[in-house]
Amino acid sequence: MREQVIEWLRARGVELEDIARVVQELLGGRFSDLTLEECLASVRRVVDKREAQFAILTGIALDVLAEQGHLPEPLRSAVREDSPLYGIDEVLALAITNLYGSVGLTSFGYLDKRKLGIIGQLNRHADGGVHTFLDDLVAGVAAAAAARIAHRRQTLADAAAGSEGEGKAAS
Amino acid sequence: MREQVIEWLRARGVELEDIARVVQELLGGRFSDLTLEECLASVRRVVDKREAQFAILTGIALDVLAEQGHLPEPLRSAVREDSPLYGIDEVLALAITNLYGSVGLTSFGYLDKRKLGIIGQLNRHADGGVHTFLDDLVAGVAAAAAARIAHRRQTLADAAAGSEGEGKAAS
Amino acid sequence: MREQVIEWLRARGVELEDIARVVQELLGGRFSDLTLEECLASVRRVVDKREAQFAILTGIALDVLAEQGHLPEPLRSAVREDSPLYGIDEVLALAITNLYGSVGLTSFGYLDKRKLGIIGQLNRHADGGVHTFLDDLVAGVAAAAAARIAHRRQTLADAAAGSEGEGKAAS
Amino acid sequence: MREQVIEWLRARGVELEDIARVVQELLGGRFSDLTLEECLASVRRVVDKREAQFAILTGIALDVLAEQGHLPEPLRSAVREDSPLYGIDEVLALAITNLYGSVGLTSFGYLDKRKLGIIGQLNRHADGGVHTFLDDLVAGVAAAAAARIAHRRQTLADAAAGSEGEGKAAS
Repeated sequence: MREQVIEWLRARGVELEDIARVVQELLGGRFSDLTLEECLASVRRVVDKREAQFAILTGIALDVLAEQGHLPEPLRSAVREDSPLYGIDEVLALAITNLYGSVGLTSFGYLDKRKLGIIGQLNRHADGGVHTFLDDLVAGVAAAAAARIAHRRQTLADAAAGSEGEGKAAS
Repeated sequence: MREQVIEWLRARGVELEDIARVVQELLGGRFSDLTLEECLASVRRVVDKREAQFAILTGIALDVLAEQGHLPEPLRSAVREDSPLYGIDEVLALAITNLYGSVGLTSFGYLDKRKLGIIGQLNRHADGGVHTFLDDLVAGVAAAAAARIAHRRQTLADAAAGSEGEGKAAS
Repeated sequence: MREQVIEWLRARGVELEDIARVVQELLGGRFSDLTLEECLASVRRVVDKREAQFAILTGIALDVLAEQGHLPEPLRSAVREDSPLYGIDEVLALAITNLYGSVGLTSFGYLDKRKLGIIGQLNRHADGGVHTFLDDLVAGVAAAAAARIAHRRQTLADAAAGSEGEGKAAS
Repeated sequence: MREQVIEWLRARGVELEDIARVVQELLGGRFSDLTLEECLASVRRVVDKREAQFAILTGIALDVLAEQGHLPEPLRSAVREDSPLYGIDEVLALAITNLYGSVGLTSFGYLDKRKLGIIGQLNRHADGGVHTFLDDLVAGVAAAAAARIAHRRQTLADAAAGSEGEGKAAS
């Protein structure tokens, strides 16, 4: 299913590299040695998770159906207009972020407000499409990938600290 | 929007009274004096909340679109077959339950497993329809309504205890 | 219990008015007529909710116990140092924000990152105290109060629109 | 930190094997070939996650502090009496379950209601201790471990189905 998710994202104007750039911008101040490759690898791992895949597919399907006029009212207007009180787009996005714990929620909220990179492009609807779900889903994936990197770097730092203190037996 | 939500539920075979009966069965062992009217009033209050309304409309729309073949694969199969790993149906339902705090989550899980009343009927697909979202949404509304009743009864009990201990000034 | 919550907050340096000012700053760009009184009334309603009260009491107790050295290691260090990967402070705060639906989560994340008003003061630990939970709890209450205002204003706007369209019968 | 978490659990009367037995009972009807070893391995993976570790340490600390009388009122009574409206115990437990997506939430609710195995023992307070958080945390870990097993088995089944359809190249 991973390949289908990547294709659906691409068909809506989002490459995994775009999401990786958001992750790098988000974490750049904290980890100065963070490469785009590490960010992209982390984005790929998030997109490998089945729950993330289903959230992405469901959200994109709703965007497309709203665009094509196949959603009944009053749902269609709520999705087309990205009503700030609709809320279901955030609910799906957070289902992704939560997979890496609560530490990603702050990043999600920040991204949703500041709309870095591709998120801002989607939000401006420059292509005339409905991206009510997609911009939040991308923020959710980026926040999850950033949380994953923060957790992994801490684990590596803990292991390094442990091996200094405990000698080779710990490695 | 409340009237539209009630109509959508009815068109899919669910009356608010059906949900109220689930609430009464769920709480019957705890509050022996609980009437169907109190349960129904609580269900109505849950359905008055905008986030609950949007979750219900979105979930029912996805059920109907899956039924009519308007969802693209692999999403269509996941929704039609109510795959246990799909998970987005629970995500929408919990967005409703969470509106009354975490105490409703236990009830939601129990209802989702035991499928009391109308939830079981929907789950058996006796009408040939797709109810992947609807059975969870009904469980989410019932769990929220039950949590609301438990909170209100405690508040009334606290107030009664306070007035006993503190005299009339507290009432 | 509400009075005890307000006292605990005050003892840790937070007045409800401080939280109301954060709400006003958060929403000021969106609702230019928003008064501090309306914000304060909304903060009070959030703090009336039992789940919000228990989250606040639990979080403040953990801050105080960490300050006094009564938490066992490695928990004590995680709370004292406000480790970015601790995450339980965000979990408690989000239990408050979720009471008003997912639309507050964006505000929470933004506040947690930008640390407006009293949140920034707490985070700087100017008083030498541990406020690992408190700054997040204040952000959670402010985000909830802001979501509540947004929901209410929309409801009023819908009602006004409805009465225009449907005549006096609807008012 | 993993070893400390295992020691804290043991000191409160819970072995990882006890949690594994709950997982096996929970999933036994669905996967008849499920061994206690597979369940234990999955429990270990959950307990390896930093967010699970912090939730467990925080919850157990609150149980112990309530037992020793070190929590201030009204928090102490709420924790000692395991008030059904306290809710923060469920909030911490769900932070663990959510790490494996929403599919574990149903299991959590069911376990919290039916109190299988060690969960029931803790809930009966046979040892005279306060286990308000611990019984929920164990249910949260068990539900997460069960969700992890369900996801992994589906992934293996998908891979097997893929290799049948696509021949050796896919294996």
